[in-house]
Amino acid sequence: MAQASSARVKVGIVGGTGYTGVELLRLLSQHPNAELTAITSRKEDGMPVADMFPNLRGRVKLAFSTPEKAPLGDCDVVFFATPHGVAMAQAQALLDADTRIIDLAADFRLQDTAVFEKWYKMPHACPAILKEAVYGIPEINRAQVAKARVVGNPGCYPTTVALGLAPLLENGARLVDTQTLIADCKSGVSGAGRKAEIGLLFSEASDNFKAYGVAGHRHHPEISEQLERLAGGKVGLTFVPHLVPMIRGMHSTIYARILPDARGTDFQALYEKRYENERFVDVMPAGSLPETRSVRASNDLRIALHRPEGGDLLIVLVVQDNLVKGAAGQAVQNMNVMFGLPEDTGLGQVAVLP
Amino acid sequence: MAQASSARVKVGIVGGTGYTGVELLRLLSQHPNAELTAITSRKEDGMPVADMFPNLRGRVKLAFSTPEKAPLGDCDVVFFATPHGVAMAQAQALLDADTRIIDLAADFRLQDTAVFEKWYKMPHACPAILKEAVYGIPEINRAQVAKARVVGNPGCYPTTVALGLAPLLENGARLVDTQTLIADCKSGVSGAGRKAEIGLLFSEASDNFKAYGVAGHRHHPEISEQLERLAGGKVGLTFVPHLVPMIRGMHSTIYARILPDARGTDFQALYEKRYENERFVDVMPAGSLPETRSVRASNDLRIALHRPEGGDLLIVLVVQDNLVKGAAGQAVQNMNVMFGLPEDTGLGQVAVLP
Amino acid sequence: MAQASSARVKVGIVGGTGYTGVELLRLLSQHPNAELTAITSRKEDGMPVADMFPNLRGRVKLAFSTPEKAPLGDCDVVFFATPHGVAMAQAQALLDADTRIIDLAADFRLQDTAVFEKWYKMPHACPAILKEAVYGIPEINRAQVAKARVVGNPGCYPTTVALGLAPLLENGARLVDTQTLIADCKSGVSGAGRKAEIGLLFSEASDNFKAYGVAGHRHHPEISEQLERLAGGKVGLTFVPHLVPMIRGMHSTIYARILPDARGTDFQALYEKRYENERFVDVMPAGSLPETRSVRASNDLRIALHRPEGGDLLIVLVVQDNLVKGAAGQAVQNMNVMFGLPEDTGLGQVAVLP
Amino acid sequence: MAQASSARVKVGIVGGTGYTGVELLRLLSQHPNAELTAITSRKEDGMPVADMFPNLRGRVKLAFSTPEKAPLGDCDVVFFATPHGVAMAQAQALLDADTRIIDLAADFRLQDTAVFEKWYKMPHACPAILKEAVYGIPEINRAQVAKARVVGNPGCYPTTVALGLAPLLENGARLVDTQTLIADCKSGVSGAGRKAEIGLLFSEASDNFKAYGVAGHRHHPEISEQLERLAGGKVGLTFVPHLVPMIRGMHSTIYARILPDARGTDFQALYEKRYENERFVDVMPAGSLPETRSVRASNDLRIALHRPEGGDLLIVLVVQDNLVKGAAGQAVQNMNVMFGLPEDTGLGQVAVLP
Repeated sequence: MAQASSARVKVGIVGGTGYTGVELLRLLSQHPNAELTAITSRKEDGMPVADMFPNLRGRVKLAFSTPEKAPLGDCDVVFFATPHGVAMAQAQALLDADTRIIDLAADFRLQDTAVFEKWYKMPHACPAILKEAVYGIPEINRAQVAKARVVGNPGCYPTTVALGLAPLLENGARLVDTQTLIADCKSGVSGAGRKAEIGLLFSEASDNFKAYGVAGHRHHPEISEQLERLAGGKVGLTFVPHLVPMIRGMHSTIYARILPDARGTDFQALYEKRYENERFVDVMPAGSLPETRSVRASNDLRIALHRPEGGDLLIVLVVQDNLVKGAAGQAVQNMNVMFGLPEDTGLGQVAVLP
Repeated sequence: MAQASSARVKVGIVGGTGYTGVELLRLLSQHPNAELTAITSRKEDGMPVADMFPNLRGRVKLAFSTPEKAPLGDCDVVFFATPHGVAMAQAQALLDADTRIIDLAADFRLQDTAVFEKWYKMPHACPAILKEAVYGIPEINRAQVAKARVVGNPGCYPTTVALGLAPLLENGARLVDTQTLIADCKSGVSGAGRKAEIGLLFSEASDNFKAYGVAGHRHHPEISEQLERLAGGKVGLTFVPHLVPMIRGMHSTIYARILPDARGTDFQALYEKRYENERFVDVMPAGSLPETRSVRASNDLRIALHRPEGGDLLIVLVVQDNLVKGAAGQAVQNMNVMFGLPEDTGLGQVAVLP
Repeated sequence: MAQASSARVKVGIVGGTGYTGVELLRLLSQHPNAELTAITSRKEDGMPVADMFPNLRGRVKLAFSTPEKAPLGDCDVVFFATPHGVAMAQAQALLDADTRIIDLAADFRLQDTAVFEKWYKMPHACPAILKEAVYGIPEINRAQVAKARVVGNPGCYPTTVALGLAPLLENGARLVDTQTLIADCKSGVSGAGRKAEIGLLFSEASDNFKAYGVAGHRHHPEISEQLERLAGGKVGLTFVPHLVPMIRGMHSTIYARILPDARGTDFQALYEKRYENERFVDVMPAGSLPETRSVRASNDLRIALHRPEGGDLLIVLVVQDNLVKGAAGQAVQNMNVMFGLPEDTGLGQVAVLP
Repeated sequence: MAQASSARVKVGIVGGTGYTGVELLRLLSQHPNAELTAITSRKEDGMPVADMFPNLRGRVKLAFSTPEKAPLGDCDVVFFATPHGVAMAQAQALLDADTRIIDLAADFRLQDTAVFEKWYKMPHACPAILKEAVYGIPEINRAQVAKARVVGNPGCYPTTVALGLAPLLENGARLVDTQTLIADCKSGVSGAGRKAEIGLLFSEASDNFKAYGVAGHRHHPEISEQLERLAGGKVGLTFVPHLVPMIRGMHSTIYARILPDARGTDFQALYEKRYENERFVDVMPAGSLPETRSVRASNDLRIALHRPEGGDLLIVLVVQDNLVKGAAGQAVQNMNVMFGLPEDTGLGQVAVLP
């Protein structure tokens, strides 16, 4: 375990009433270097966060306040656990106050503003800041995250697909057909957020399974942009998300056709080598069947490779907790990198099983 | 199985977009004598019901229409699967058209209008009609249901508690202390209806258990009124409802202190005798442990008695499907009684297990 | 609705203690022409079936008996809801008694006995009977089912994949690349049967998602044999089953590459035409997202087509209840066909939603 | 947060293949003072624990070994996460080696060996050691735990009922009728352990609710013994456990009749005072509705009081995670007390919500 550092990081959270908000609070309240300084919610001004989220009773004393009253400018870093569009409206003011930004929404994920505007139905408010923003998967671009003033924290689906495919695409590798990739992904219901919608009710989502967003999902362009950056060129990806009757957890089943010249590749060795120093990425023995519960409430992400009958189809199975490595945990990991802390500080939770 | 009757009953449903609505449609679409004639929803005017409820695809061709356009006055009976207050506003017009009414909301359940107004925060619109309305548990007041023009279909909790205690209270029985009754009840989430509320989300209600409404629940006065009618006097009842992470099902654990003079009573025989001719009430062998899944999607209600160590506490366990015997199934049962059909017509569904 | 027939079919069930057994009992006890005559379980001899399955209380009076005592030879048809290997041991004796056979296990599904022996680790006991056995998907081979003495009732996965791909493969169609088919399938836990295994415990399977059997699953050769029969030649299929934390339901996401010459095909029209007279197959409007709950406890199977961005990948979504259309319901459907009854007799159940 | 101590406690676990075992591993692997030294399983000798419990991959390197090979005598403390009867067979040898014992089974919970033998169907192997054993609820008998060589770690139900009623019974209080107490308790399925039993299957326990053990449950005499110790005399308790379709969590709804002379008592103040210095007991504001998820995977226990309409019935609601405060967490808490560590060392986990 990494040595404890005595550095203090003053932390603010904008919009802490959703699931990524409460998950940030769970993680940061146990983080030895984080000093929870402010949490905002215009609607819940004055309410102790523990009144909304009873798991925090006795652990977090903070109350929600309006953005105006919250001392966000005094913070070293502010997390945005808000709807899309909020972070970009406040980014310049925070940067002016030397406060760094980790946005858990989509404002700083897509470098192509036209794509952003198409999918999020709003113009980008600060393209200049977007340009310097770093897409925050430390396992892929740790060096940039370390220096970033603004991190666009990835969506949950993109994290699994990018880490699941990175070893196949990076460094000009010509291993798989990059034009026929398929990501058949399954997510727990908390991925949809804490929104009062009929389709997310227990009586609708329980004991049920369905695909959704097949005709188009916001994470699709985000995944594509990342895969193309990795591959250094156009990538053709089919992405089919499904809703699983479980609270947390994400399982991506990724299909890639091995190129004829790459049939002799030892893919297992390739993945193990790629992630050997990564604390949160677990390349399981070949043929393993990762379960979402094996990462429940932890920042771990597990990968297992399959190549049925030694044929030309590679199957990559990836699991993570969508709220941790897929959201709040990765955000804290990014914070650790940005502030020079050991990367696993405050992220040592062992997954909860059963 | 009862002999088929050729009678046709023209049926209308007001407000079919909730769970009791779709359950009525499931049952009535399989009912050999029911002719589904109209279903109203002001908001969904024109939408085929099967577009909202895909289980009905290929089974129910009806589309929602506004109350104005719907031929409700041509119906023999209209079910109200609406929020409280709707049925009483339309009751007189329907009665004038010789259309009978089964209200699945609370408008015609409580004879005491002051109590109604206290709990439902609205004045009663038609106290005169309320007076003739019959509380619809056929096992308790079949004869009145048969002649009723207006039936107040019971709430889900009251059905289990009334049927669970009836043999102990009826006919001036002095068997248990009627002042210290406790009903510790547990309900599946669908009992709360198809409402977009945070607390009913899968991510909130799944893998969780809690009591609610301990300080006061609308079903409490309804239960009390029925128990007092059965007992012929004041009854003291503590009622604690709980929310179970399952879609359907209700389990009531009822505690009653046996009076000293009644300690020799054969309660098992009492219950078996009381319900021996009731098609939908199953008195299980003494000491049985009824499971909610044993009645899932069926109109059955099961009762089991326990008397720990032969002491003076009688425990009555009651299970039902809250949407069937606790709502739509009982409503159809009431319809059958009102129209002289065999009481189980269209209600022969065997519970779905597993 | 089909006209009622007065024919009586005497029915026996061998091995009624599993989930397909209790589901057969649920369906057959409501079937107007079925006369439940015998149900066997060596282990539970003498126990009323309703003692094991409380949903049957008051509905099914039959008790389990040993195969020796059960009048199976007097039955018109015997269903085997047994482990693999049981039906083939008793088949000849039943056929000698003019009793027809519907086997819900694998004994009569695979025409290639070498494949059977590889996957089921036992020699085939009656290859001659196997030769005349018919694979029982009425929508594919109704005429043969009608005349069959022995029906191999399909596995749950194969039903979805065969019906999902049939229109693309039949009649020498050259529409999709038959060598790169992918079936990413998701099943509820009841598909694994009523077996006391750690991995199937609530505490293991709930709030969890995983793939399984990626290296090899018994349904793979069964699916392949059926697809190859449809296609009239070799088919290359990748099959990845997953376990969903729900009791019932199956969702198959099938990926097929459209051949260059077939890009102009109206696939939606093709599917609608193919299944237009099929009572239990619902081709939903293009772009629909079928949910497993829309078929819960019913014999319906729903299909929806997607072609993202009009590209060359066709996605076929298929849902069914694994215990009904995927097992017991299809078995009853086969029985109806075999005995000249209207195909939907006793199968009119509307799916239970919510 | 308590100051870190540098003391090392060498820990052994006997029988780590069940749910309390894996939960001990989760907690102890994050405990700064615990040195995991040995874990035994005769059956899994040689298997890395992380192969059985994938949440421990990368966190726990230990492998199971036989009791013979395991250096249990070198440990400072050994936890028994075994079936009943194992700890008492090994206790003397460990004590001889100066190793202290925390038994998560029932061997050292019941001081009355006749009661033990009645419920556990085996004679007690070491009544002398039992005499010195301490029932381990630190909030009730912290001083004795600190000095104990052998701790009987409480069952999950008893922890909630004892802590829920302690303020009403202790110190000769005459507040409630101790002869008519009712504990209507609800437990998640993991409470039944990791046993391959039909009734615990996902397909049996999901979407279902039932009472069980009404005629007699092993925790009943354990609760009674503790309540009587608290009350200093006979107590009459009705105990009805129920099974909830959730993995973790326990909710006890306790009913107590207030004695006439005690009607003026401020029960809320009584409870707040009683537990004001208890780190893991949270007395919520009067009228609160504690949810099991508010303690999921944490060692917190929450209590809320209700007194409907100010009458003479006091309702005490108690929630805990059955595997943490109800088992492994309390065991670690006992260890902390026994070894002079700050009581919350390694137990700072915030509950996982959602």
